[in-house]
Amino acid sequence: MALIVQKYGGTSIGTLDRIKIVAKRIAKRRREGSSLVIVVSAMSGETNRLTKMASQITDNPNEREMDMLLSTGERVTIPLLAMALQELGCAAQSFTGRQVGIMTNSVHTQARIEEIRADRLKSALADGIIPIVAGFQGINAQSDVTTLGRGGSDTTAVALAAALSADLCEIYTDVDGVYTTDPNIVSAARRIPRISYEAMLELASLGAKVLQTRSVEFAMKYRVPVHVRSSFNDNAGTVVTMEDKAMEQELVSGITYNKDQSKVTLVGIPDRPGIASMIFEAISKENMNVDMIIQNVGQGGLTDLSFTVPRGEAPRAKKILLALGNEIDVHHIALTEAIAKVSIVGVGMRSHSGVAAKTFSCLSDEGINIMMISTSEIKISCVIEEKYTELAVRTLHETFGLGEDLSSAHEEVGH
Amino acid sequence: MALIVQKYGGTSIGTLDRIKIVAKRIAKRRREGSSLVIVVSAMSGETNRLTKMASQITDNPNEREMDMLLSTGERVTIPLLAMALQELGCAAQSFTGRQVGIMTNSVHTQARIEEIRADRLKSALADGIIPIVAGFQGINAQSDVTTLGRGGSDTTAVALAAALSADLCEIYTDVDGVYTTDPNIVSAARRIPRISYEAMLELASLGAKVLQTRSVEFAMKYRVPVHVRSSFNDNAGTVVTMEDKAMEQELVSGITYNKDQSKVTLVGIPDRPGIASMIFEAISKENMNVDMIIQNVGQGGLTDLSFTVPRGEAPRAKKILLALGNEIDVHHIALTEAIAKVSIVGVGMRSHSGVAAKTFSCLSDEGINIMMISTSEIKISCVIEEKYTELAVRTLHETFGLGEDLSSAHEEVGH
Repeated sequence: MALIVQKYGGTSIGTLDRIKIVAKRIAKRRREGSSLVIVVSAMSGETNRLTKMASQITDNPNEREMDMLLSTGERVTIPLLAMALQELGCAAQSFTGRQVGIMTNSVHTQARIEEIRADRLKSALADGIIPIVAGFQGINAQSDVTTLGRGGSDTTAVALAAALSADLCEIYTDVDGVYTTDPNIVSAARRIPRISYEAMLELASLGAKVLQTRSVEFAMKYRVPVHVRSSFNDNAGTVVTMEDKAMEQELVSGITYNKDQSKVTLVGIPDRPGIASMIFEAISKENMNVDMIIQNVGQGGLTDLSFTVPRGEAPRAKKILLALGNEIDVHHIALTEAIAKVSIVGVGMRSHSGVAAKTFSCLSDEGINIMMISTSEIKISCVIEEKYTELAVRTLHETFGLGEDLSSAHEEVGH
Repeated sequence: MALIVQKYGGTSIGTLDRIKIVAKRIAKRRREGSSLVIVVSAMSGETNRLTKMASQITDNPNEREMDMLLSTGERVTIPLLAMALQELGCAAQSFTGRQVGIMTNSVHTQARIEEIRADRLKSALADGIIPIVAGFQGINAQSDVTTLGRGGSDTTAVALAAALSADLCEIYTDVDGVYTTDPNIVSAARRIPRISYEAMLELASLGAKVLQTRSVEFAMKYRVPVHVRSSFNDNAGTVVTMEDKAMEQELVSGITYNKDQSKVTLVGIPDRPGIASMIFEAISKENMNVDMIIQNVGQGGLTDLSFTVPRGEAPRAKKILLALGNEIDVHHIALTEAIAKVSIVGVGMRSHSGVAAKTFSCLSDEGINIMMISTSEIKISCVIEEKYTELAVRTLHETFGLGEDLSSAHEEVGH
């Protein structure tokens, strides 16, 4: 009997009626002969409601207490879904993150799973029970509740699938799967039927919101096949799996973008060893994440250095830099908030050259200036002015032929 | 330094503003030099909201799942109160029932505390932290969440006070303390400044809603002084403690009533050994609680037997009786829903006779027929027609002089 871990997100179980509908889907699947573990999020809106309560108490909530508070969201959904299944005659039981042995480190609000002690889950499965597990949460070594960060329920589901050696992990959401780009910007955007872990990882980390990046890392590490589907219909969705021959032929899988960053530029700073490391040590010591970095070729002993930080953090970056002393003065520092990062992702880039050249000429043809570039084996990212985002995405989507009919040969996958 | 366990009920922390007010009270008390453990309920309305959600999923919710669901109410309050205290500069931390080691049996929705493993609580206190504990909940040996029944947070507070050998347990609620009777019925009702465990136990179990009966049992067993007070003012409240000389002089402490029962009467059943035990074995096997029982003196080999069951359960009792076979037919059974139990409680009854006679004549003077009587050393209960409840309470309150000024000699107690 196939073992499947299913995860239902907040909109999938956003109302009591939706919970009943999801229960029916689960019961049907069970009757068809699958062994199931269900992971659920909080009902949509619940996490925001709880966060708002905390913000009315304090501007600076303690993270341990936030985890205690936010973890209640999932703990409301699990007994309700278990009851709905029992009402349909299915043996189901709710379990918290702790009860299914999700052991994490102690980084509250952003904890990482360190170990899964799945004995109780296995014994429930052996008893023919459908375990309904609270996503997003675990406990640390002190037995305090931790949470895994926004979208952490995806990670719970994939991690449980890995721990149980499940045959498949299904992620149910409110969209039909992973698309070649944002359908709100490009109406010709198409669902990707099959994508590799590597390409999905790039898409997720570059801003496609369908799966949490860490869940994809987990799936890749443990070779868990992930199937992203909608809980609102029976459409085919997207399978995330190991690279296979069909994928190799695809030059580009998708175009993604994000507007979450801003740019800091240091103009005319001394071009000598040690300056860059001094700067980025100071930034990282303040727990600020730097994404892209470029340094120009120096001239006359001076050079320019640009990097991106999370949107809204640029002024803090400036403060950190100014505190470094008299090598960097305020006239050196330019901040640009209104930038966007547009990225082209595809495993085919590994074996095909020319994608970069085609990207640059395509943007240039539209008069879009590229401020920064970063590349990996299967990705090219360009920082551009924010106002050109939609134009850039649309033109790249067309240039790489993503709106065309994707081969139906690898369209549908069985369970 | 005195160690005080404080419990705040649902109305005391019913809004975010109330949570901030309670935090200020706690912070003040802490600065005055007390070591504190705080136990809280769910915000008022929250338990009903959760119960309603379950009732929209199923008419017959599984009790393990109900416990998982309802226990979230307190888990929302504890981090919010901890944050509010941190905002005032107090070291505070939230703890679930599990985290403070409240081990219960497995009777979901009505679990009893079996053991308290307070190591973590003690170590938090040693570190100068104010622990904010979720009331009403514990875990069983399987590590499943259990709840202690309505009002169970009182029991959590008293049990923790016992486990920590605290100097005092303060129960904060929305009334000023324990009254001689319901002030809604008798405007002359007066607050009782000091009452014995025994009398409080009778009052609580007879329907005075201020303290959960089991919390009083716990307090009596472990000699925990309990102080019932309002969180909305600084009034003196009621101290529940061991019987002392001042109390001995009080004949009657209070008059209480409840309308939670109905009466089942078996008319003209065989008057022979074994009949009554057959009846009550059958009733108890169906988990129905019988409160009062009276059997008339038999005549001509037949007798009448009356007993009370929880309101609304009389029809089910009838069904159980009919299933017993042909010794009891449907014509024997009379059900009366509209009854009330009025009770007189006071430790002075132990040493003074005449209370019963005075009670009966007082009710008789008002033309109120007494259907059933039950007595203990410190209590007399009479079942009467429901419509006479207010009249009976008012006349008894006056007859026993409870509206008069209670001696101010033992009015105020220090902490």
